[in-house]
Amino acid sequence: MPTAIPADSVGLVSPKVAHFAEPLALACGRTLNAYQLIYETYGELNASCSNAVLICHALSGHHHAAGFHDAEDRKPGWWDSCIGPGKAIDTNRFFVVSLNNLGGCNGSTGPSSTNPVTGKPYGADFPVVTVEDWVNSQARLADMLGIEQWAAVVGGSLGGMQAMQWTMSYPERVRHCVAIASAPKLSAQNIAFNEVARQAILSDPEFHGGHFQEKGVIPKRGLMLARMVGHITYLSNDAMGTKFGRGLKSEKLNYDFNSVEFQVESYLRYQGEEFSGRFDANTYLLMTKALDYFDPAATHDDDLAKALSTVKADFCVISFTTDWRFSPERSHEIVDALMAARKNVCYLEIDAPQGHDAFLIPIPRYLQAFRGYMNRIAV
Amino acid sequence: MPTAIPADSVGLVSPKVAHFAEPLALACGRTLNAYQLIYETYGELNASCSNAVLICHALSGHHHAAGFHDAEDRKPGWWDSCIGPGKAIDTNRFFVVSLNNLGGCNGSTGPSSTNPVTGKPYGADFPVVTVEDWVNSQARLADMLGIEQWAAVVGGSLGGMQAMQWTMSYPERVRHCVAIASAPKLSAQNIAFNEVARQAILSDPEFHGGHFQEKGVIPKRGLMLARMVGHITYLSNDAMGTKFGRGLKSEKLNYDFNSVEFQVESYLRYQGEEFSGRFDANTYLLMTKALDYFDPAATHDDDLAKALSTVKADFCVISFTTDWRFSPERSHEIVDALMAARKNVCYLEIDAPQGHDAFLIPIPRYLQAFRGYMNRIAV
Repeated sequence: MPTAIPADSVGLVSPKVAHFAEPLALACGRTLNAYQLIYETYGELNASCSNAVLICHALSGHHHAAGFHDAEDRKPGWWDSCIGPGKAIDTNRFFVVSLNNLGGCNGSTGPSSTNPVTGKPYGADFPVVTVEDWVNSQARLADMLGIEQWAAVVGGSLGGMQAMQWTMSYPERVRHCVAIASAPKLSAQNIAFNEVARQAILSDPEFHGGHFQEKGVIPKRGLMLARMVGHITYLSNDAMGTKFGRGLKSEKLNYDFNSVEFQVESYLRYQGEEFSGRFDANTYLLMTKALDYFDPAATHDDDLAKALSTVKADFCVISFTTDWRFSPERSHEIVDALMAARKNVCYLEIDAPQGHDAFLIPIPRYLQAFRGYMNRIAV
Repeated sequence: MPTAIPADSVGLVSPKVAHFAEPLALACGRTLNAYQLIYETYGELNASCSNAVLICHALSGHHHAAGFHDAEDRKPGWWDSCIGPGKAIDTNRFFVVSLNNLGGCNGSTGPSSTNPVTGKPYGADFPVVTVEDWVNSQARLADMLGIEQWAAVVGGSLGGMQAMQWTMSYPERVRHCVAIASAPKLSAQNIAFNEVARQAILSDPEFHGGHFQEKGVIPKRGLMLARMVGHITYLSNDAMGTKFGRGLKSEKLNYDFNSVEFQVESYLRYQGEEFSGRFDANTYLLMTKALDYFDPAATHDDDLAKALSTVKADFCVISFTTDWRFSPERSHEIVDALMAARKNVCYLEIDAPQGHDAFLIPIPRYLQAFRGYMNRIAV
């Protein structure tokens, strides 16, 4: 943590845990009898319970979106640039709820939790969960918190898919949907990258069919490879070029396979290593599957406008010019469908060199426009 | 093989092997005391030895570029669409030489060859070879064949890099350089993809530090992952979308990790499987390193025009609109440098949906222009 908490920080925060004992029927056909969700809140819920904003996280995200857990923290939550007093999601105005999704590995029930039936970790026996399942589980959290209707459901990437799904699953319960750097469904290329990541994990001998925890090991190499290939898709070609170019790690070339020759190799290996020590392999598989399966138009003759025809929310859609994971064209699909369905939509295309990761970065025009939209809808 | 050999095929061909006993000094500082190169030739060398064309192969290519090895072959050589009587590289006019590069796994000396010092396969002890080393080894093959000067050196992708290097290493020995879907050096993103592929191989427990042959195993999973990630970069996003979209493998979703849900997953797994059974892991590592290291401008103040200042060849540079591995912008860099160096260059940008793989595909405008250039330079 910085020596003093910045004035625009939500400050010290603590996660809470919500327990749910009512069985949750899942899209895969299985049922989760009981589960818990870990979450944080920032700001105060007003008397009419009308100022609540739900934050949905992306692939490797979690509940800790803003502020600091303790005085030793070097970094704040993952979206601290957008959540806090006076920030885009202004905690002086909004009551913000941020959770770790079902199937996660940061405190919500997931593959590393104990399966009450066996007394052992679920591992690969944890059911595959979808974006729709997540939204259903989040609706129960809203019930528990006394939130009948969200002022806004907000998310980037996979989080944006959840925000969109909310408007379709619970039209009456969302006033505004903010979908950032998102897509209405994955492309074949998106699925292909996910499949490489999954095969890297599944083929790691330490994966043990998903029951590595019982063996006291982790499929570190598989997770590392999965993260490395993922990371390439989060950065733009230009951003990688600007950041690393062909810069060498040491002064001269080594001409072997084990040395790190180029800085970009060193960066990727570090990112992979770091991630493999903190993320659960089964959760990674689940998250990529949730991405693959998301396709709300599929049950509406592949017509996204039809899928969105019953939504009541207004939309704010934001994309970034150099994002090639979910390019602006993917946001155009969402906007076009909303227009065709005669919905209210505000669209912003932000000129940014950072690629998909831009949604996490404090880019002035992005923050200003995002804040503008949120301030306008504050009650 | 088709029931009858097509009239525009070079027909039945047999590879030959050339042995070299003079030590070859390599860029890495090591020396290869003796080596062999496997090659094929198509057409006839004319009396003045002025009609020879060298074909340089890409990452996973080899010497068998055209025709059939025997009547049982289902498919002809890898560039049969461009080499044959009346084709772009017309074997009625040209004497075509195609080889497997040093370090390869198709008959030229490489990691799976026996190291004369140990009597065992080289494995990981085979020296790292560069594009410059390849060109030097190819120059000795030219000497052996009595070819003082190539009418043209031609290649796609990594093959294009070799063609460019020829003009710089041996300016007097190349009249024309045809560099297709190539780049003057890898970008950080290109290197990053190579690094993921390498780490997949290096971390496979069956790799055994590159000495898997002695153990009687192959790092099949690593090679499979390497090929899967490579394959994504060979196809355009659009081509993948058109070919597979979100098509399902079976009628309904399985909601598990082991089933194949989408056709694109099935395709990638098949490509990976097939490749892992026929390609050598150490050769894959070598080829990706040769790509990474290629950077002729590096020794000329990062000025490609300077690097090209001494070339005597005329150039034909061809790119494909949807190639995102080596995009048209990378070819523009080559063309701009050639123009700045006052060299003769013809540039073609072919509108093609197939991505990087387009250079292997018989696209009418591409074949027509390529044939036009080659016919013009025929002597």
